[in-house]
Amino acid sequence: MTSLSNSRVAVVGLGLMGGSMAAALKSGDRCAEVWGIARRGWSIHEALRRGWIDHGTLDLRQGVKGADIVVLATPVRTIILLIDRIGPWLREGCLLMDLGSTKQQVIVAMEDLPPGVEPVGGHPMCGKELSGLEAAEPSLYEGATFVLTPLQRTSPDSLALAQELVRAVGAHPLVLEPRQHDWLATAVSHLPYCLAAALVQTAEEVAAEDDQLWELAASGFRDTSRLAASDVPMMRDILLTNQEAMADLLRRFRGHIDRWLAALEADDESELERMMRAVSSRRRGLFHL
Amino acid sequence: MTSLSNSRVAVVGLGLMGGSMAAALKSGDRCAEVWGIARRGWSIHEALRRGWIDHGTLDLRQGVKGADIVVLATPVRTIILLIDRIGPWLREGCLLMDLGSTKQQVIVAMEDLPPGVEPVGGHPMCGKELSGLEAAEPSLYEGATFVLTPLQRTSPDSLALAQELVRAVGAHPLVLEPRQHDWLATAVSHLPYCLAAALVQTAEEVAAEDDQLWELAASGFRDTSRLAASDVPMMRDILLTNQEAMADLLRRFRGHIDRWLAALEADDESELERMMRAVSSRRRGLFHL
Repeated sequence: MTSLSNSRVAVVGLGLMGGSMAAALKSGDRCAEVWGIARRGWSIHEALRRGWIDHGTLDLRQGVKGADIVVLATPVRTIILLIDRIGPWLREGCLLMDLGSTKQQVIVAMEDLPPGVEPVGGHPMCGKELSGLEAAEPSLYEGATFVLTPLQRTSPDSLALAQELVRAVGAHPLVLEPRQHDWLATAVSHLPYCLAAALVQTAEEVAAEDDQLWELAASGFRDTSRLAASDVPMMRDILLTNQEAMADLLRRFRGHIDRWLAALEADDESELERMMRAVSSRRRGLFHL
Repeated sequence: MTSLSNSRVAVVGLGLMGGSMAAALKSGDRCAEVWGIARRGWSIHEALRRGWIDHGTLDLRQGVKGADIVVLATPVRTIILLIDRIGPWLREGCLLMDLGSTKQQVIVAMEDLPPGVEPVGGHPMCGKELSGLEAAEPSLYEGATFVLTPLQRTSPDSLALAQELVRAVGAHPLVLEPRQHDWLATAVSHLPYCLAAALVQTAEEVAAEDDQLWELAASGFRDTSRLAASDVPMMRDILLTNQEAMADLLRRFRGHIDRWLAALEADDESELERMMRAVSSRRRGLFHL
């Protein structure tokens, strides 16, 4: 059985998530070697300079072929293409994990991998609106919930190794079904992105008539709109691999907006106050403010 | 002409905003005396203990009658009642300012003040989702835009004094028309509250079927939903004194949500990407991330 400490880990994609994964593994000295595979020479140069990888290459095949663990850290639709492409190059027993924000289509692609490969889906519930290696940091995963979606074919040993990797970077593994993951992640992550984006669009429309608007924008607007600055290729792939859940939750959300509108137009103070007390109490219970 | 340094300032309401105003004035030694008027003895006791007021009283009349500047720092509908009530008690030339988040109804109430009173509307664009004196701090206003809405009757000297007060607590005064203020504040502050609230309602609905949802909620959900924890009496009064602008902007916002939904359902990658690039670029340009 492979253990993390003896493993060569290859991270494909040295952006925010992949760069931070490499950084966490290296700074904690948690595995034998970290390889970084990137499209830009600069990323490899910079990751080497920071001591976050032991070896870097632009050659995907060279980077993954001797690895015990391969972590795919690119936008979701690229992950799906990469799974198909690198499958034949992976060594017998290699754990193939991804960090994509939607899991159903990734898992379907993983089903077709050669029999010797040990696939498991992954999605760390952390991030920032900044992207790229510039924004990466060894502590990004600390304290985060890290969803794992094993396949029927995934062996218990490989799932255990994936869990070891998750804990090694400071996160808590949580095993979910792919469909369940996609539904829940849409509610807590992809839906908030769309609201933030539609808020910025609405504000932009108001600012087109009166640009003093931006002088009034303070911490409330800043935080509510933050996700609108998310990395575009990442979010685009999330939305396009999860349309059904996204559309369903956008409709549910719109139903709640309609309830606020109805209560406002009816001047229904008691209904407004009831809704406000319920959401305030729920939200205050969720995070340490 | 009254100057701030010679003034007795009375702050009515020692919550987050009023407490922070008193704290900023006292810690910068910016006026002669600060009086605090509250409904709870505890607030006065605590504000005295922190050195944020020189005198405190539960008696509104006693608190405001000798003041050169009175600052009303309660929920908006209470501000409107207070304006009517304290008008006859104020000394000749007293500057009466409020910190309410909507201005049109406040200004209407201020029009009816006795002739000797110098009213000006105020709205500092800062805050937190926490409320009460416990959450107050002397630095709350630092760097914030602080909207002032003078009336026709407001003398230039009184407006200058209000601006001096604003700068004394570290904020930047911005003079706006009341209607203009309410429209812009709705877009950057009250609309974000409703979105955050509707997001919490949607998530709650999903969590009712699968409570693992909350384990997946991370910084994106935390920030987008933060305003849902806002003080209920404050937000209730904001919505109920600004229904028209709020309903109008909720409808515009819903129109943008519908555009996301349409693009998703049509699988329109280029339209999605166009919208995403536009909001990402706009949002990245707004704040220092």
